[in-house]
Amino acid sequence: MISTSVADEFRSIVGDAWFLDTPEDLATYSYDGFLPEFMPDAIIVPGSRDEISSILRVANREKINIIPRGAGTNICGSSVARKGGIIIAFHRLNKILEIEPENMCTVVQPGVVNADLQKEVAQYSLMYPPDPASLFVSTIGGNVALNAGGPRGVKYGVTRDYLLGLEVVLPSGEVIKTGGKVLKSVSGYDLTRLMCGSEGTLGIMTEITVRLVPLPPAKATLQAMFSDLDDAAKTVSAIIGSGIVPTTLELIDRVVLDVIANFGGAKFSKEAEALLLIEVDGEASSVEGQGEKIERFCKERGAIEVERASTPEEADSLWQARRTAFGAVASVRPNCIVEDATVPVKRLSEIIRKIVELADKYHLRIGVLAHAGDGNLHPLIMTDLKDKEEMARIDKALDELYEVTIAMGGTLSGEHGIGIAKDRFMSLEFSESAIDIMRGIKKVFDPNNILNPGSFL
Amino acid sequence: MISTSVADEFRSIVGDAWFLDTPEDLATYSYDGFLPEFMPDAIIVPGSRDEISSILRVANREKINIIPRGAGTNICGSSVARKGGIIIAFHRLNKILEIEPENMCTVVQPGVVNADLQKEVAQYSLMYPPDPASLFVSTIGGNVALNAGGPRGVKYGVTRDYLLGLEVVLPSGEVIKTGGKVLKSVSGYDLTRLMCGSEGTLGIMTEITVRLVPLPPAKATLQAMFSDLDDAAKTVSAIIGSGIVPTTLELIDRVVLDVIANFGGAKFSKEAEALLLIEVDGEASSVEGQGEKIERFCKERGAIEVERASTPEEADSLWQARRTAFGAVASVRPNCIVEDATVPVKRLSEIIRKIVELADKYHLRIGVLAHAGDGNLHPLIMTDLKDKEEMARIDKALDELYEVTIAMGGTLSGEHGIGIAKDRFMSLEFSESAIDIMRGIKKVFDPNNILNPGSFL
Repeated sequence: MISTSVADEFRSIVGDAWFLDTPEDLATYSYDGFLPEFMPDAIIVPGSRDEISSILRVANREKINIIPRGAGTNICGSSVARKGGIIIAFHRLNKILEIEPENMCTVVQPGVVNADLQKEVAQYSLMYPPDPASLFVSTIGGNVALNAGGPRGVKYGVTRDYLLGLEVVLPSGEVIKTGGKVLKSVSGYDLTRLMCGSEGTLGIMTEITVRLVPLPPAKATLQAMFSDLDDAAKTVSAIIGSGIVPTTLELIDRVVLDVIANFGGAKFSKEAEALLLIEVDGEASSVEGQGEKIERFCKERGAIEVERASTPEEADSLWQARRTAFGAVASVRPNCIVEDATVPVKRLSEIIRKIVELADKYHLRIGVLAHAGDGNLHPLIMTDLKDKEEMARIDKALDELYEVTIAMGGTLSGEHGIGIAKDRFMSLEFSESAIDIMRGIKKVFDPNNILNPGSFL
Repeated sequence: MISTSVADEFRSIVGDAWFLDTPEDLATYSYDGFLPEFMPDAIIVPGSRDEISSILRVANREKINIIPRGAGTNICGSSVARKGGIIIAFHRLNKILEIEPENMCTVVQPGVVNADLQKEVAQYSLMYPPDPASLFVSTIGGNVALNAGGPRGVKYGVTRDYLLGLEVVLPSGEVIKTGGKVLKSVSGYDLTRLMCGSEGTLGIMTEITVRLVPLPPAKATLQAMFSDLDDAAKTVSAIIGSGIVPTTLELIDRVVLDVIANFGGAKFSKEAEALLLIEVDGEASSVEGQGEKIERFCKERGAIEVERASTPEEADSLWQARRTAFGAVASVRPNCIVEDATVPVKRLSEIIRKIVELADKYHLRIGVLAHAGDGNLHPLIMTDLKDKEEMARIDKALDELYEVTIAMGGTLSGEHGIGIAKDRFMSLEFSESAIDIMRGIKKVFDPNNILNPGSFL
């Protein structure tokens, strides 16, 4: 609980209108994409870096937890007040400050929505590659805090690969700058990358500089159906081994295809075990050839059906199944848990088989969406969070899944983060010494442990 | 000084043959590419991770400084025993442990020479993009410690962009693993990237996993001469603004061209103020078109001469000037100081003019080589380290250069590191709070400050 005098102090910093503590406000900010609810003590919506600095000075003095939150789309519970405290929301800090085509970079405030930035830079024939599924809602600040990925990751990598510089307010209220508009820098420790994926536990970002790339002039989009999962996995390896770097290489399994068919009426062959959605981009001349080559690879490896889009509209319709997937799966049961196990690409079919096995063993309904091209799987567990018995079975299945994932040389999270969702698995991936180092780093930035203390450490 | 009993302890770990302390050995390891000499107390050449772990346990107990050193090619003095201690050399840990074409990655020991790795992975039609000028000598461990770049950086980025995972021995002797063979991971703080560029101050790497990319099937190489530096700089901007991402975009200024001409007999037009060396790679179809487009850009922007290679031999001869540059410049005076100022690309001609102005003001001979495509300049100061009066003038010129660089939004080092060479400039780029955070991180990893304590912090 925050005392009246401290609440007044916060109000005097941001103005009464931006300090929210009605029951409705608290309820609104009590959950994020991870779903479990934790009531915050208040919400503050700052309008400037200096206000954030003042807020942190007070919070640090009073040892009040502060949880920065973008659009709350993360699905690991990294933007909720697990241990109470104040949520800082960024919807007033939503300006694109600069776009510099000559330097191929842009400077934004953390509350800028990813899709808004995409649209703006496209006017300069530029692209900001990270494209999380949440892009129409999620913010660049949240994307950096979670090191967001997306389907384009196969070719373009993740948020970290585009992050150039940051302005960060430390818990002490002091402001530091890291990196900048330069494309290369090796000057001191890499605090920019350390902030990326730190889930709001080290500092609060107030300005973000990211690199842009030329908007590719052409695309080729293909969809291939396989009656055998191994054939699909072999096709993934063949494409990657051929020297083609696809922009996107998505896999949808039978379970999800069935759900999509029931949901929206799209029809898939009854024999289909897996769908691959493949996109390449670049200059028209090379994209054309790559599209043909990929079509051949699919057919040679047993695809029962291959479609290649010849217009943007056709491409859009091929994306339809992938885009519908989350909505369709979410409609089956009250809740859908989206997992994020990631393995070396060549272990792809192995880990999918393991998931099928776990669904069977624990009587669960689990579908698989995968960014197959980078080994990043999203097992979709259709469930009801209120069903304690089923949730206990899910916990057991996840224990097994992450043990196997790590044993395969994988990681707990490809692009969704650890947060509350997976902190219990950290010791599978990291030794006690490594976790101690992380705890030490946390303490250097945040000695009073006020920043998102509920998160992974 | 190391006591006889401790020296014996080290000998018992690695065997007598791999603990070196004759005056000849000490002299050999007393300097690196930065040149100033600091005599170490001994050199140890370990043969395994476990030996390194044992060495660090003893060193940490006895508070003996340990300085890891690859090939010693770095030019910032980050591999010398500035404050005494033991150099750890890696020439026994020089094995490529795994190459996995299906996962597009390789696992190597730190002592593997960059060019050896390039050659090996080329057999799988793969490429390891970072290509520092030192690549025929320098090691992957050293490349990671300094976050090495190279001419291909414009398109492919730097070492950090290819680093996937590490095995690291901490000063306590404990071993941690970070990252792995997965292409995406957001799991805990990014210790992998934190190690990259940390100049041997945080831990000792014993295994390094890096990402590979398909070897591009085709290249186009062009050389263009300009009688006006601004025309060359405008051409750089035009190429980058056009959506072409060149692999390489190098600039050589008049001073260096003259030195090359005197050294090797290559002839350049008397009016030439700047040479651009431009390379694009990719599929043959797109590379051809890009080459033509670049040739047109150069001519439209006042190039007095453009050559486009049509065979690999011709391409090789166009690279000749760039390759000769360092040797030629080094022959002019007893020493050559290679600086590494980096600015946003659009400030390129401005910073080059500043360098010309400083050379004039302080009566120095300074040529400029630049990775122009990413704003990374290498001012080459031809001098004699023994001439104290001239060195004092150089110090003043560098003070001004780095003040201007930072004021332009630049960084102290694009790809060479800070080390001893530039630690005095750190406060230009970073606030005291940011440096305190770095000191805190150092202390978390290395509480007794035994790892390369002479370096930048």
